[in-house]
Amino acid sequence: MKAGVRNRFNGTIKDIKKGTVMSQVTVQVGDNEITSVMTNESLEDAGFRVGDNVTALTKAINVVLVK
Amino acid sequence: MKAGVRNRFNGTIKDIKKGTVMSQVTVQVGDNEITSVMTNESLEDAGFRVGDNVTALTKAINVVLVK
Amino acid sequence: MKAGVRNRFNGTIKDIKKGTVMSQVTVQVGDNEITSVMTNESLEDAGFRVGDNVTALTKAINVVLVK
Amino acid sequence: MKAGVRNRFNGTIKDIKKGTVMSQVTVQVGDNEITSVMTNESLEDAGFRVGDNVTALTKAINVVLVK
Amino acid sequence: MKAGVRNRFNGTIKDIKKGTVMSQVTVQVGDNEITSVMTNESLEDAGFRVGDNVTALTKAINVVLVK
Amino acid sequence: MKAGVRNRFNGTIKDIKKGTVMSQVTVQVGDNEITSVMTNESLEDAGFRVGDNVTALTKAINVVLVK
Repeated sequence: MKAGVRNRFNGTIKDIKKGTVMSQVTVQVGDNEITSVMTNESLEDAGFRVGDNVTALTKAINVVLVK
Repeated sequence: MKAGVRNRFNGTIKDIKKGTVMSQVTVQVGDNEITSVMTNESLEDAGFRVGDNVTALTKAINVVLVK
Repeated sequence: MKAGVRNRFNGTIKDIKKGTVMSQVTVQVGDNEITSVMTNESLEDAGFRVGDNVTALTKAINVVLVK
Repeated sequence: MKAGVRNRFNGTIKDIKKGTVMSQVTVQVGDNEITSVMTNESLEDAGFRVGDNVTALTKAINVVLVK
Repeated sequence: MKAGVRNRFNGTIKDIKKGTVMSQVTVQVGDNEITSVMTNESLEDAGFRVGDNVTALTKAINVVLVK
Repeated sequence: MKAGVRNRFNGTIKDIKKGTVMSQVTVQVGDNEITSVMTNESLEDAGFRVGDNVTALTKAINVVLVK
């Protein structure tokens, strides 16, 4: 897969927390964690499970820099 | 500063590329790079410069997982 | 703090509504209200409470104009 | 028009800055300014001009709170 | 209404799923479905109901291409 | 590839417009067009070209409904 996205992090799903409509998935990426929120339906369609190797993508436009 | 944002990465600005309206800022975060796009005005107001220590923030909702 | 974000509004948190995964925070900004949605974890980590003075940030790219 | 968007601000376009692909539109909203970035094509299709009365919309999920 | 948004799809609401804070609305667009997530408050303010004719908007910046 | 994203459209790239920092890619999807904006670097890394078969993804949270 090639994606038009600047920021990518490979990691492993370490936690999934399901709500009524939205779910939160936490990914271990080296020493850091990255958290993604998606609909429950997206979670189920993709079949994400704790332990899965995944890539976390975020477009450059969604990154805010502060100093 | 406390921010209502799940994902944070501390790093150093290594490159700034200015366009007509938008600028692209690349941040070295450990062995990875994170890229942010913002308006030129935001870049100038914040005064970001190569070598600055910054924190890159992105909300969990903006992270897409793929496997 | 300096942030690479165009739009900022200073106000006071007037309401917090917690869901299972996501929370909604309403901020009084002069005569207007601004609403933010974040994960419960972000809410708790930042320690937002009713009455807190906060700044609401949104990038220019996330603003849609209609006429 | 009814829109599924929490945050709305009525104002007047005070400045338009066109780039190669993206344009920046600044809207005067009371004493504040709100800036929107869109493609040049969206700008032209909507026919936005300085002096137009517009509504600026942003979803709650795109608002970051900091304190 | 004229909106500064590239992508538009006219369709009919076929399903609404309400959570505690967020709701998910599914729109039939020809042979495809488009799903939108918004706050319950936005859903109620706009008064969206199954069977309503709606337009789904998404800015070009929020579209990720993969191949 | 499995992605945690609700909205997907398969199509063919019909136009690419390059700016200084950002590029705009138009995809023909049946009778409709979908437009994506990304950094030039993302465009080049993914190697998108006119005629490529691509999938356009957008998260449900980025879809605004109006009626």
